[in-house]
Amino acid sequence: MSDANKAPIGIFDSGIGGLTVVKAVMEQLPNENIIYYGDTARVPYGIKSIETVREYALQITEFLLSQQVKCILIACNTVSAAANEEVRAFCGNVPVLDVVAAGAEAALSVEAKNESIGVIGTLATVNSQTYETAIHATAPGKRIFSKACPMLVPLAEEGWTDNEISRLVIEEYLGDFREKNLDALILGCTHYPLFTPLIERYLKKSGTKVIDSALSIAARTRAMLAEHNMINESGEKGEFTCFVSDKPQRFQNLAERFLGKKLHRIEISPLV
Amino acid sequence: MSDANKAPIGIFDSGIGGLTVVKAVMEQLPNENIIYYGDTARVPYGIKSIETVREYALQITEFLLSQQVKCILIACNTVSAAANEEVRAFCGNVPVLDVVAAGAEAALSVEAKNESIGVIGTLATVNSQTYETAIHATAPGKRIFSKACPMLVPLAEEGWTDNEISRLVIEEYLGDFREKNLDALILGCTHYPLFTPLIERYLKKSGTKVIDSALSIAARTRAMLAEHNMINESGEKGEFTCFVSDKPQRFQNLAERFLGKKLHRIEISPLV
Repeated sequence: MSDANKAPIGIFDSGIGGLTVVKAVMEQLPNENIIYYGDTARVPYGIKSIETVREYALQITEFLLSQQVKCILIACNTVSAAANEEVRAFCGNVPVLDVVAAGAEAALSVEAKNESIGVIGTLATVNSQTYETAIHATAPGKRIFSKACPMLVPLAEEGWTDNEISRLVIEEYLGDFREKNLDALILGCTHYPLFTPLIERYLKKSGTKVIDSALSIAARTRAMLAEHNMINESGEKGEFTCFVSDKPQRFQNLAERFLGKKLHRIEISPLV
Repeated sequence: MSDANKAPIGIFDSGIGGLTVVKAVMEQLPNENIIYYGDTARVPYGIKSIETVREYALQITEFLLSQQVKCILIACNTVSAAANEEVRAFCGNVPVLDVVAAGAEAALSVEAKNESIGVIGTLATVNSQTYETAIHATAPGKRIFSKACPMLVPLAEEGWTDNEISRLVIEEYLGDFREKNLDALILGCTHYPLFTPLIERYLKKSGTKVIDSALSIAARTRAMLAEHNMINESGEKGEFTCFVSDKPQRFQNLAERFLGKKLHRIEISPLV
């Protein structure tokens, strides 16, 4: 194994949501070192112009490359939609994976009984039609049903992921989808994996496979590293470094809920 | 009546929430011309540093003064907490009113049975303790109970202001308050007046008076204009001009829900 294999995986998001991707990568690739960047000072990206999102994404990419990462995971649906090509071009030979491509690929790998896929996400992601574009590039015949679920991000941040309120919100948003017997439902927002158990329970009888794009991109990363012979096989537990551009009140608790474990150190590193 | 009385009232907020203040002013002062500025490109302010909020607030103030307003209403709790003094200093002789002072004053005017007042707001407003400071400046003996209610803004924007979900959310947040028999509860966020009927129903038996700070600042404005002999008595219906720094998807519907009426024209005017 070359020393390059010990280089960290870089993961970024506009805020803390991408920590669900970190969690999935830690589980599937426990020896990898990980560097995360959350742009907490400038979140949310979904309400900003495409030009601004591109500029921010390239600033973060530059920061991660300066940390000698061996690949970059775009753990942000807004950036995946707005700046995917720009980030790839900027990275040159460093491989780039993104949640949209990974989620779309995972949804297409589900047995197609009804040739239909559901997508839920923020208003920005749904309006961008980024999942439609990604899916139709491979499978133009798929019917896609998408729905913006703006309450799910604040619900996740409040920690109400499996109570009576979240159950009613899921019913309200996914009521139509339950009747459609979709082959798959893509959770197209990095906050949404916190609702996976609730959504799986709600859609159980409709036979819909729930696609957690955090798990999908982690699996895709594992495959890509194996293909390039870049897996860290040191046998040591990987190190995790968490950078943010601002550390708001209650950040630590919130971050730990998304990561599913204690977070010992958070570095504050503004980009501008 | 001098021509100066026909000058518009300037009202601003970080986003659309301040339109609840516009609505209240329209109802209480129907002949006044109103200019609103919502900084929709840079919302939310609550997660930004105090210095940044001050800078933004002064940019908007400068814009409103350039429109020859006769007074300015700060319809934003975050700005009231962070930049009240700066805005006043910048305005010179032009009177400035703010939602925090108006809400605190209204709460203090309620008959004091238990010498206790509740405050709900965003996390930023609650952490700033701005209502505590304003109330204790006049009435140091009051007990104040405050609670951040982060779900109420997204609920209001989703339009779920009086359904089963919002009822459960109010129960979750205000359950403790119902037992305390507070004299008054200040709705310390410009989005919250949309929940006034629901909250009043929920607190009915505890004898708590709900203070809608949009109504409070409108009443305070009316009194101030009368004191200065500045009321527009033209008898003509006032004109309303709505400026925003960005016009996101669905803005029109959302704005009309907050304003409680049709909005015929929205001007986009970035500040930088």
